[in-house]
Amino acid sequence: MREAATATAVRATIGDSEFDRDTAVTRRVPGVYDVGLSAGWTVFGAVNGGYLLAVLGRALADALPHSDPFTVSAHYLTACRPGPAVVRTDVVRTGRTLSTGQASLLQCDEDGNEVERIRVLASYGDLDALPDDVRTTAQPPAIPPIDQCFGPQDAAGVPLPSGDPAPVAGSSAITGRLTLKLDPATLGWALGSPSGKGEMRAWFGLADGRDADPLSLLLTVDALPPTAFELGLEGWVPTVELTVHVRCRPAPGPLRVSITTRNLAGGFLEEDAEVWDSAGRLVAQSRQLARVRLG
Amino acid sequence: MREAATATAVRATIGDSEFDRDTAVTRRVPGVYDVGLSAGWTVFGAVNGGYLLAVLGRALADALPHSDPFTVSAHYLTACRPGPAVVRTDVVRTGRTLSTGQASLLQCDEDGNEVERIRVLASYGDLDALPDDVRTTAQPPAIPPIDQCFGPQDAAGVPLPSGDPAPVAGSSAITGRLTLKLDPATLGWALGSPSGKGEMRAWFGLADGRDADPLSLLLTVDALPPTAFELGLEGWVPTVELTVHVRCRPAPGPLRVSITTRNLAGGFLEEDAEVWDSAGRLVAQSRQLARVRLG
Repeated sequence: MREAATATAVRATIGDSEFDRDTAVTRRVPGVYDVGLSAGWTVFGAVNGGYLLAVLGRALADALPHSDPFTVSAHYLTACRPGPAVVRTDVVRTGRTLSTGQASLLQCDEDGNEVERIRVLASYGDLDALPDDVRTTAQPPAIPPIDQCFGPQDAAGVPLPSGDPAPVAGSSAITGRLTLKLDPATLGWALGSPSGKGEMRAWFGLADGRDADPLSLLLTVDALPPTAFELGLEGWVPTVELTVHVRCRPAPGPLRVSITTRNLAGGFLEEDAEVWDSAGRLVAQSRQLARVRLG
Repeated sequence: MREAATATAVRATIGDSEFDRDTAVTRRVPGVYDVGLSAGWTVFGAVNGGYLLAVLGRALADALPHSDPFTVSAHYLTACRPGPAVVRTDVVRTGRTLSTGQASLLQCDEDGNEVERIRVLASYGDLDALPDDVRTTAQPPAIPPIDQCFGPQDAAGVPLPSGDPAPVAGSSAITGRLTLKLDPATLGWALGSPSGKGEMRAWFGLADGRDADPLSLLLTVDALPPTAFELGLEGWVPTVELTVHVRCRPAPGPLRVSITTRNLAGGFLEEDAEVWDSAGRLVAQSRQLARVRLG
């Protein structure tokens, strides 16, 4: 009772939320931003790649004349650690409807040398200026109602075949920041019976109730457990490259996310994500190339 | 008879073909390459984006310690013209299994000022070093046998609803460089009856018989008529961003290419391409964000 009442009372808003505080960028000089990578968005110690993309995306939104990410391509170079970092941006081209920029996220190593963690190339525009025309043939993913789906707290302690606790359990800080409710049909891995299909589906929200916006969609596309788990693989699936297309400003309310892998081969796989908003619009599409540890 | 005999006699090879000559890069100083963009790869005067990506990809293959493109993300800034251009590369990170680089293609405007046309971020590796493990669930596209598919010469002169000749007809130089045989099920647009589905499928080869390699796959993913035609739209569909994953060195022989669009909305669409080789391997996947002119 108390939790529900508190959640209602302090429901966060866009601009005033955990996500906004933890992705804040402080302009040092034009184009250069100081950031503090929060330990609150880690998965077993690794900083989530979608959270990092949102940090870079916020810096680019400040550096470019347009504020909405339309297409963002990130190449992940070295693993980030929670703590201070700097984002250096470069305006590549400014146009009437689209602007293109580049950004690098860097951290200092133990000797004080800057090491590049991620490099991003992105084109920004104004989502509100797009026509309403929708001729999509895509259909939202078939996910059971949210109260029939399972969150990390439900799965906590469920042992994996390896004997490790389920990776969505409380040991990963990010699970406390998200309201993630997984489709039972894609939860076999947590019960020791992966489906063998490269699919993962979930309802997604931010735990403090903040609604989605184009920047938070950059987090959403990389926030579900990896499809590799349902393919019977374990362990970390580090992202090599992730490209996100934001296609529409999301309506308030929970999002539906579907991740699909068609090609697991040669130690790599792709993960295609679709994000649907409460109004039934396909608001983001992404694809990443990730490495897997073959068993 | 004569044509067939000639084709057999002069069948081009990887390294000695139209494609190799027209994507050649000449190192001016380390990391900087002079290139000549050929008019042979134009579509109604515009230089094909996949051909351009192959030029950039070849420069990066020289600049980086690894030679195979694993994931290449390109943002298209301004339209290229046939003629001289320069590619400037930058090594972002070199690793044991993957190296990441950046490249820009630039041309001089009428005042002699360099204008950036395309910027690319890419990670390269060694495809031959990957394990053979394949657990893909993807299936090759169902395309009729090649002799039941239709090439540009077959479609030449077929009028579009606008009265313009079919865009795959001889007026586009690139059609002479490709052996493109379209699935009749995705050819409705050329007969004035677009299917309404965002699908395009074809057999693909280089006209001079050169087999595919990782660099030519960068061309292949962007070489079919746009899916927008089957969605009833006309005109140019300029690419904003194109990311290609090369997943396997292609076997010799014709390729099968499938392009799918799920989300046409707000004046943009995505095009997802899959390329399958003659051995039944999924050798490349790509996604692009493109602009459409809504009718």
